[in-house]
Amino acid sequence: MAGKATTLKQEAPLVSGTEYAFAQRMQKTPKSFIREILKVTENPEIISFAGGLPNPELIDVDGIAQAAKEVFEKDGRTALQYSTTEGYPALRRFIAERYKKRLGMEISPDEILITNGSQQCLDLIGKILVNPGDRVAIERPGYLGALQVFSLYEPVFVPIDLRNDGPDPEAFKAAICKESPKLFYCIPNSQNPSGITYSPEQRQVCAEILKGHRTIVVEDDAYGELQFSGTAYPPMKKLLPDQTILTGSFSKILSPGMRMGWVCAPKKIMEQLVIAKQASDLHSNYLSQRIASQYLETNDIDAHIKKIRAAYSMQRDCMVGALAGEMPAGITWTCPEGGMFVWVTLPAGISAMDVFSAALKEQVAVLPGIPFYVDGGGTDTLRLNFSNASPERIREGVRRLGKVIRSLR
Amino acid sequence: MAGKATTLKQEAPLVSGTEYAFAQRMQKTPKSFIREILKVTENPEIISFAGGLPNPELIDVDGIAQAAKEVFEKDGRTALQYSTTEGYPALRRFIAERYKKRLGMEISPDEILITNGSQQCLDLIGKILVNPGDRVAIERPGYLGALQVFSLYEPVFVPIDLRNDGPDPEAFKAAICKESPKLFYCIPNSQNPSGITYSPEQRQVCAEILKGHRTIVVEDDAYGELQFSGTAYPPMKKLLPDQTILTGSFSKILSPGMRMGWVCAPKKIMEQLVIAKQASDLHSNYLSQRIASQYLETNDIDAHIKKIRAAYSMQRDCMVGALAGEMPAGITWTCPEGGMFVWVTLPAGISAMDVFSAALKEQVAVLPGIPFYVDGGGTDTLRLNFSNASPERIREGVRRLGKVIRSLR
Repeated sequence: MAGKATTLKQEAPLVSGTEYAFAQRMQKTPKSFIREILKVTENPEIISFAGGLPNPELIDVDGIAQAAKEVFEKDGRTALQYSTTEGYPALRRFIAERYKKRLGMEISPDEILITNGSQQCLDLIGKILVNPGDRVAIERPGYLGALQVFSLYEPVFVPIDLRNDGPDPEAFKAAICKESPKLFYCIPNSQNPSGITYSPEQRQVCAEILKGHRTIVVEDDAYGELQFSGTAYPPMKKLLPDQTILTGSFSKILSPGMRMGWVCAPKKIMEQLVIAKQASDLHSNYLSQRIASQYLETNDIDAHIKKIRAAYSMQRDCMVGALAGEMPAGITWTCPEGGMFVWVTLPAGISAMDVFSAALKEQVAVLPGIPFYVDGGGTDTLRLNFSNASPERIREGVRRLGKVIRSLR
Repeated sequence: MAGKATTLKQEAPLVSGTEYAFAQRMQKTPKSFIREILKVTENPEIISFAGGLPNPELIDVDGIAQAAKEVFEKDGRTALQYSTTEGYPALRRFIAERYKKRLGMEISPDEILITNGSQQCLDLIGKILVNPGDRVAIERPGYLGALQVFSLYEPVFVPIDLRNDGPDPEAFKAAICKESPKLFYCIPNSQNPSGITYSPEQRQVCAEILKGHRTIVVEDDAYGELQFSGTAYPPMKKLLPDQTILTGSFSKILSPGMRMGWVCAPKKIMEQLVIAKQASDLHSNYLSQRIASQYLETNDIDAHIKKIRAAYSMQRDCMVGALAGEMPAGITWTCPEGGMFVWVTLPAGISAMDVFSAALKEQVAVLPGIPFYVDGGGTDTLRLNFSNASPERIREGVRRLGKVIRSLR
């Protein structure tokens, strides 16, 4: 035994196959609960409302293939070479011009940086602005992807309760004045997960409260083009231009797999974003930037978006109609003006996790709302995705869900 | 005047068009000096040795266009949809099999994550491992992109002097034992910027010193496929598998614009990398992953790499030959076994910045070595890129450079 003791006294390797000293920030970053759930629901027999995928039938594969062909023929060698950090100028001009046309906003292409989907914008924003301990205000429930990425920068989250027309004004004012958050992260159009859209009045109220404070608004507009009525409410960026960083995405209107997003920020902030982007990955995929730009130049994106809106609007109607027909009393849900999600609140005494487990046995996947709450809570909520299931499957899935919930009462 | 004083007492806006409170980490992140220099040298009349671009003539545009066509035809809808964080399984398998074939390494595809170029690997590694104040050992001179991205995680850099065959062993041992760095970042094959390659003996020496220490090796192998002789020395990953994170890139052998890189790490580290990757941008461009994978399946990548090696080897010979013919006595340079760069050391009394300015007047761009040194130094060094200029332009550029340096003596 003495020999063994001696062995143990030798310098223990501090790196072994099992022990590494990870950074502090990783202890605060939640592993995606959605990711784990989605693994369970990969079986195609399952009717899944748990994910957040756009409808693949609405991707213009032929149009994008044709655009790619044209890029390769016209300028393939350049499109495959390194490029600038800021992104392809013609694509940035297109985005700026669209802000002008759709929303009457004066944005310079110099205020736009192309990113790997709009998720990367949040990483870059966290990098350049958030010190450990800084306050970051976020909607309650809030977008899980934002909670995950901001967690890497070790902020203290300040959750702000949502009403059906935007943040609760009293709660919002108290949060901004008392906590003085560095950022207020929000999705004013068809919020993920709740599906609500801030009313024009509530946008004004928020802007008035924010004016003169140090808080920078991070306005995530992944779903702005998917407002079913085609109405575009004024973005926070228009109300507070120097105080807002606006992010956008081609994922919901062109293709998610191409990971094309952008961030639009005041010049002083843009300078720092470009430094962070260059350090992080030099620049976004240039081939895909060129293909996206070519597609947008040679196709009628408005007609394509109209088609997506019509399809998702029909799918929303189908889900909301099915919920009205199948859900027992005491259950409420949002009726979103756009986007891809309906938010369900269960009656007291029914747990979303129980609904999740019981529904899965009936081959229906739903997403419990818990991970969207930074401070616990949400145990009685579900997020249902309607963009990626046919009307038949929506109706059948909701029927089974109603049966499951009735059995749990 | 009382009125004015009252006005000043009102709450001053902390956000205005000009003042934002950026995160501490941004103060430590150098803006790329190369970036600024490259802007100066964009004029095509200038013979530029300042950049770091692969030769665009060696990009197989037709082959990649054909692969893209096949992906769109075969599986376009899926290729344009969201995908998994880890990356396309067939591409990860290809990489694992290539490690086996080229280097006799047993790597599981599960130990590989696809990234936006290998630069993003460094961001993810910094994220999951580096706390502010941690030591990060790096070669001196060291890759500027690594200095930039690791700076975001606020380490203390520990520079390790390079000899012609790898790190100076005494300096290396002292650094590892005394500073106990969290990471040792290195480019053992055709290092950027110096062009040197670690000898097999020095790799063993480094591995022996590192064994049993907490230091994790970050082995950046951007140039491993470009060793002109075709010789593949054992990577640090093979010598210290549980203690090494290996990064790779398709930028130098396929296309930089597609931003396809990967990181290969022990499973426990991979778990954290995947969480960080998902938080940072969900997943890498899936369309490009599919195109790259299709290309690699249907083309002879070994033949293509052989062609690149032959061309770069000829360009290196041309540059080294021209330097021998044109440089005044007292100037030394490396003769790289691979990669894209020659490293020049000027005689005492001649400043690289003066050479840069004087050469630019003669329409030749060179890169002063200063930004590759974390601790100052390098004022008498230059990096010359040979991969992106024709033999004629290499000879003419070096001739002018010789003239400039003689005039400065």
